[in-house]
Amino acid sequence: MATRFQTLPGFRDFYPEDCAARNHVFDIWRRVARRYGFVEYEGPILEPTELYRRKSGAEIVNQLFCFTDKGEREVSMRPELTPTLARMAAARQRDFRKPLRWFSIGQFFRYEKHQKGRGREFYQFNCDILGEESALADAELMALAIDLMREFGFTASHFRLRISDRDAWVRFAAGKGLDEAGVATFLQVIDKMERTPEGKVVEQLGSLGLALDEVRAFIASGAEASPAIARILADLAARGLADYVEVDLGIVRGLAYYTGPVFEIFDIGKGMRAVAGGGRYDQLVGLVGGVEMAACGFAMGDMVITDLIRETEGPAERLAAAVEENARVDACVVLADPSKEAEAASMVQTLRDAGFRVLTSLSSAKVAKQFQAAEQSGARFAVIVGVEFPELTLRDLASRAERAVPAEGVVEALGRPR
Amino acid sequence: MATRFQTLPGFRDFYPEDCAARNHVFDIWRRVARRYGFVEYEGPILEPTELYRRKSGAEIVNQLFCFTDKGEREVSMRPELTPTLARMAAARQRDFRKPLRWFSIGQFFRYEKHQKGRGREFYQFNCDILGEESALADAELMALAIDLMREFGFTASHFRLRISDRDAWVRFAAGKGLDEAGVATFLQVIDKMERTPEGKVVEQLGSLGLALDEVRAFIASGAEASPAIARILADLAARGLADYVEVDLGIVRGLAYYTGPVFEIFDIGKGMRAVAGGGRYDQLVGLVGGVEMAACGFAMGDMVITDLIRETEGPAERLAAAVEENARVDACVVLADPSKEAEAASMVQTLRDAGFRVLTSLSSAKVAKQFQAAEQSGARFAVIVGVEFPELTLRDLASRAERAVPAEGVVEALGRPR
Repeated sequence: MATRFQTLPGFRDFYPEDCAARNHVFDIWRRVARRYGFVEYEGPILEPTELYRRKSGAEIVNQLFCFTDKGEREVSMRPELTPTLARMAAARQRDFRKPLRWFSIGQFFRYEKHQKGRGREFYQFNCDILGEESALADAELMALAIDLMREFGFTASHFRLRISDRDAWVRFAAGKGLDEAGVATFLQVIDKMERTPEGKVVEQLGSLGLALDEVRAFIASGAEASPAIARILADLAARGLADYVEVDLGIVRGLAYYTGPVFEIFDIGKGMRAVAGGGRYDQLVGLVGGVEMAACGFAMGDMVITDLIRETEGPAERLAAAVEENARVDACVVLADPSKEAEAASMVQTLRDAGFRVLTSLSSAKVAKQFQAAEQSGARFAVIVGVEFPELTLRDLASRAERAVPAEGVVEALGRPR
Repeated sequence: MATRFQTLPGFRDFYPEDCAARNHVFDIWRRVARRYGFVEYEGPILEPTELYRRKSGAEIVNQLFCFTDKGEREVSMRPELTPTLARMAAARQRDFRKPLRWFSIGQFFRYEKHQKGRGREFYQFNCDILGEESALADAELMALAIDLMREFGFTASHFRLRISDRDAWVRFAAGKGLDEAGVATFLQVIDKMERTPEGKVVEQLGSLGLALDEVRAFIASGAEASPAIARILADLAARGLADYVEVDLGIVRGLAYYTGPVFEIFDIGKGMRAVAGGGRYDQLVGLVGGVEMAACGFAMGDMVITDLIRETEGPAERLAAAVEENARVDACVVLADPSKEAEAASMVQTLRDAGFRVLTSLSSAKVAKQFQAAEQSGARFAVIVGVEFPELTLRDLASRAERAVPAEGVVEALGRPR
């Protein structure tokens, strides 16, 4: 009988402290997005598997939690939000003024080997602008991504947003005479270039009729290679965000569906981990939803950013403060005389109605034990209900100072709820 | 190519207004739970299927989104949270002071016919006290459930919390000489009694050696039948919540695992829908987690309560206000002179850094079009950046009053972010 159940590999239990840390990240995602005038939406966690095949090809199924449901439908736990967004935006595109500025915070699932910073389940912030072709929309998203990092407490010494432009690469490749298939192969070579031995890169480029030197020269040309990047850089500089940004054409991002500027946020500590990434994908809404709509967006997962917050002085302190605030208790009502049980219950309700976080003993614990519980709870005050009722004693649990307060004055005596 | 993808039956898209309504419900769940000193936790959305079989028997599988994953594990999308809670609490029970006061807000999945108020996917608030045997813990949860309803804007004219006690029924049945199997059958008869023709009930009771009259007399005895109920009623009355409560022994709740007081919240309009329900389940943590721990809890789903809020004057207005606040924009920055693009971008950043929700045109729209967009956005102010920079014009979009403000004075002129 006593089999101990275990959490599935790659899945997480969020005990209260972990959940408070998660909520700190969610709160900042939500707060910054709202400052940028974005509104929240959410889609289903289960979608037809075909939705992901359409976007990413048949191989995607190997990474999905997919199955056949009791109604014989092929369904998948969602690995990402973009196809759902494209479906939703296309379905009701007449109901909303363009551009749409939408964000979402939700859970995603990928069946892959789990390792540090990568689970089979994770939360992700998704933020997209639909219906706007201008590179200023890309810049707006990049500014938002930078402001997320700043709101967590990171500075320019901690991270960098790197900008590239898929379209510039496509123009480069087309200028060298590559056809569509050649361009796709070429972009894959560039995507993996940093992790591939130089000799191998030379060979791969050579088979496409290209030399490593001309590729390197193109990468070095930076913003000159892309009017869109130049426009974005000017806008971010005007916002005062230039310090957080650099051009790195070496980034092309793996996914095939990007069509213009792309970007990633990296931590510039030892880890060099990617924290967020996105770009322009002007074809996808048409492909998935049957309605042409310009689009750009980015996503940030919860796992890498939370690790990074915990490891970084500044962000770690903000997180700790949020976790502490989450467990905050304003008052413990202590029943010092058993005959006043009803009066104590009434006091508890009065304080909670006023918005205070209030604990009280749920058993008939001895007074000393109640005080011990009050101190362990971290409450600011013990509100002591005894024979003197309607006079109460208010004890400051930090200073241990006590004073008498009439019952009807307790709400005022506690001050406003923080 | 142009297959239009559809949301799976029983699943929901949350467009921004729906998402704002959902978040209003979540906010109230969270706010009231925190006032009661509860802390939030969360478990995995996917669990071993065996976890649910252990609790509910093999038939439960018919209602599950269950499948075999790529690692040959039998897994299920969770239909409820209690088994996960029992697993988590048992696994780390030494790390937390008792009683645990834990709540959670998450999504659940049941493969069943979907109808109004019942989808294949829903959100649920779960709230439990673990490690406390006293009926005061049950009373605390019932008070919390009532306060959720009050915080939504419902009054005693809208709903009632009905209390019963499974243990009182078990004592009654045992007193009539029924064995364990007989008690289980008997409880099922009582559970369905209101929806069963009287003749059939007489027959079912007769086969157990019982008469309808004695069962009715027991139901009529109300609180006298249960010291636990009497204690709970006294406590809720002391809190000033008596008007929201009634004893109804006719409630036994279907699930077999309840062991003491049980309760449900019903709307007392025409619908008589159950909005929330729960009770004491002192055996389950031992059964699932291998550690004996007294426990009580309740859950409230999002679908029935949201329908009820929308249909009820008072709660509906609070919801509408929350939805409006969600879409609130403080200011639109209007670029009246193209040469001041950088200054406008800087102004946008300054206002957002101060916490305001700010929109601005992302294309090079004409000034008239920008004003139109500003008015449609519902923003309070247009901040107009033109040739007079660093002097700006601040237009109140409701009154259309305008005044000149120096750039460095705009944050102050807008007032604090709401």
